[in-house]
Amino acid sequence: MKTFQEMSRQELEELRSALEVQFEEVKGEGLKLDMSRGKPAPEQLDTAMPLMDVLNSESLLQTEGGVDCRNYGIMDGIPEMKRLMAEMLDTKPENVIVDGNASLSLMFDTVSHSMTHGVCGSTPWCKLDKVKFLCPAPGYDRHFKVTEYFGIEMITIPMTKDGPDMDLVEKYVREDALVKGIWCVPKYSNPQGYTYSDETVRRFAALEPAAEDFRIYWDNAYCIHDLYDDKRDELLEILSACEEAGHPDLAFEFASTSKISFAGAGVSAVASSARNLEWMKSAMTIQTIGPDKINQLRHVRYYKDKAGLKAQMSKNSALIRPKFELVIETLERELGGLGIGSWTNPLGGYFISFDALEGCAKAIVAKCKEGGMVLTGAGATYPYGKDPKDSNIRIAPSYPSLAEMKEATRLFVLCVKLVSIGKLLEEMA
Amino acid sequence: MKTFQEMSRQELEELRSALEVQFEEVKGEGLKLDMSRGKPAPEQLDTAMPLMDVLNSESLLQTEGGVDCRNYGIMDGIPEMKRLMAEMLDTKPENVIVDGNASLSLMFDTVSHSMTHGVCGSTPWCKLDKVKFLCPAPGYDRHFKVTEYFGIEMITIPMTKDGPDMDLVEKYVREDALVKGIWCVPKYSNPQGYTYSDETVRRFAALEPAAEDFRIYWDNAYCIHDLYDDKRDELLEILSACEEAGHPDLAFEFASTSKISFAGAGVSAVASSARNLEWMKSAMTIQTIGPDKINQLRHVRYYKDKAGLKAQMSKNSALIRPKFELVIETLERELGGLGIGSWTNPLGGYFISFDALEGCAKAIVAKCKEGGMVLTGAGATYPYGKDPKDSNIRIAPSYPSLAEMKEATRLFVLCVKLVSIGKLLEEMA
Repeated sequence: MKTFQEMSRQELEELRSALEVQFEEVKGEGLKLDMSRGKPAPEQLDTAMPLMDVLNSESLLQTEGGVDCRNYGIMDGIPEMKRLMAEMLDTKPENVIVDGNASLSLMFDTVSHSMTHGVCGSTPWCKLDKVKFLCPAPGYDRHFKVTEYFGIEMITIPMTKDGPDMDLVEKYVREDALVKGIWCVPKYSNPQGYTYSDETVRRFAALEPAAEDFRIYWDNAYCIHDLYDDKRDELLEILSACEEAGHPDLAFEFASTSKISFAGAGVSAVASSARNLEWMKSAMTIQTIGPDKINQLRHVRYYKDKAGLKAQMSKNSALIRPKFELVIETLERELGGLGIGSWTNPLGGYFISFDALEGCAKAIVAKCKEGGMVLTGAGATYPYGKDPKDSNIRIAPSYPSLAEMKEATRLFVLCVKLVSIGKLLEEMA
Repeated sequence: MKTFQEMSRQELEELRSALEVQFEEVKGEGLKLDMSRGKPAPEQLDTAMPLMDVLNSESLLQTEGGVDCRNYGIMDGIPEMKRLMAEMLDTKPENVIVDGNASLSLMFDTVSHSMTHGVCGSTPWCKLDKVKFLCPAPGYDRHFKVTEYFGIEMITIPMTKDGPDMDLVEKYVREDALVKGIWCVPKYSNPQGYTYSDETVRRFAALEPAAEDFRIYWDNAYCIHDLYDDKRDELLEILSACEEAGHPDLAFEFASTSKISFAGAGVSAVASSARNLEWMKSAMTIQTIGPDKINQLRHVRYYKDKAGLKAQMSKNSALIRPKFELVIETLERELGGLGIGSWTNPLGGYFISFDALEGCAKAIVAKCKEGGMVLTGAGATYPYGKDPKDSNIRIAPSYPSLAEMKEATRLFVLCVKLVSIGKLLEEMA
């Protein structure tokens, strides 16, 4: 099989004509597909519906310690839910604060409190001329939006299969006291699905920051989000690694049940050292009288322990896995060996990362839209929404049905081919 | 009957001896009473338990427009819940954002966003040397804690039966561009239970601030929290008053169902002009993917409309009213005509405000604690926790049972008498 690069102008033009006919056919079907966000599918949410029966008007809505979950109080979450989240994160309950429905809010608020009050007594960032964050990329667009919102300068760090380029991370963190944080999705990273190697985690824990208020934002969003029961990535636990390295305060770890139970009505958590949690609570005690404890109770009474969470995840992955496999199979069948794209093949998480020929990502996303499918905006996976190579596309297979995924992937490969041919012909001209 | 001031030293000393015997008796009972916070009693929360049966695993968890409440999305709340909150606040649904379980967080976040980003495009407050808030006092301690946390200078404004001293408010707001806000609990104010008069509301709406980013923080926490069905205070609607006065962006109005359904698991809202809401959403869109829509759905399916909310409030007030009446009756019977205290007698809300002789509040609260009852810390109702006269005590009758309230009030009047006698004897010395 020839790669597209090996084809002659004439071969490319003929292929383009044939593909354009196919594209017009697909377009004529009036598809309305959405692969833009990592949203659970309705069928997946259905599997968590028993959660809605756990509590009713006959239930005693009290914590194990007898606190009334209907009333005010317990600012940092009910003890049994702390225990559950600690189990999920392989840490201790005393390291955990359990909050409302969104870990994104916990991250935003942590940055916001750092801006107005400084981290654990350090100078508030708003009093500094400049603050910088390291942003392994491709990464999670909403992380980058938070730092951009606060006017924090973002420095792109290339991603490898083992995590961020740690030589570069170490250099920046050690040499630049304006570098105050780094965004990480350490397991099944968004969008590549890479899991940081043990060495990467140990190098994170061993960081010697120039800034005393430097923190790792460890968004462990996919901690138990394996696609397979028999093969999965393992991530070294960050908080104990930091402790062992003599840097107990180095990391904030975030997580939630959003992609376990209900995306919009789950429970979020942050785990960190006693000192960091005290600092976070100093803000929370002013910001709130407490999170929704009834929803926490609902979750912990239903899932009970890590095994309960994993049982839910098996139901979820049974629905997500075929979609991932369909995408991967289609990409391999349709694009394998053509030299016009590469993609990841993760064992978990919510995304597949696709790298097109340089300068083609925006055009492919636009072409897909023309054909009836919304993808995450090209560039979104990079700071400021600017992919320097205009090459990365995030594929989110979780939401569409399997039938829709088939249509979507068919359209996608068609668009990749068409745009790539256009680019190659242009280069020949 | 003689006032304490008219008594001789000997009369006071004899009375004190008799009261101290009583106090020791009460103390010996080992009471553990809590009148420190405006918390609903368990019996009150019980009346909202049918809320727990509205949704179950068979329910279609969709908005009226067909949006899946289990999934991500709808950052500013589901339409039907906006409508319900708008009804409650006598405003339009398009003026409303519905959020999570705590209106306090909405207020905190609004101040926080003003600090880091400025209000509707104005200079971020953190870039200014000084920012000031007007604080009608006695007022709500958690409001004052928010402004104190952000280093905002608080200026105490005396309260009258018709609301804050508006001459003073107008003067500050008109003359000082550093004055950026004012905290208001306009109906059944915390702790006095006063409702702002129509004239006060109109004067608020007519304010001509020196600062373009001045906003009224209108915490309408007790908007439908009447104690009686047949007599209640009426509050002029602030947003339309502002609009009529040509100042549509002047006020943020906050509210929640915390003291309607479940204190810890209700739904909060903010209402304001289109321009203000756009500004708020510019932060929310970064901070969250959306609030817990299932809990919103639960609330709106159960309460349906304002009549539904009012029916719930009738159940609540049937339980709270006797406690208020017990306190007022006891105060009148035990302290009436003695010249050692005055108190408010509100038609709604959660508090009774008691003014002791100057310099006695702290000592009374301490004495109550010795006797087995926790009250809100004296001074808490003033900025920086400092009551200049050391006179105001907030009584929160909602949480204890009626039997406990009887004990609590008996202990309270005893402590007021003892501390007042001590003060008067000291002055004679």
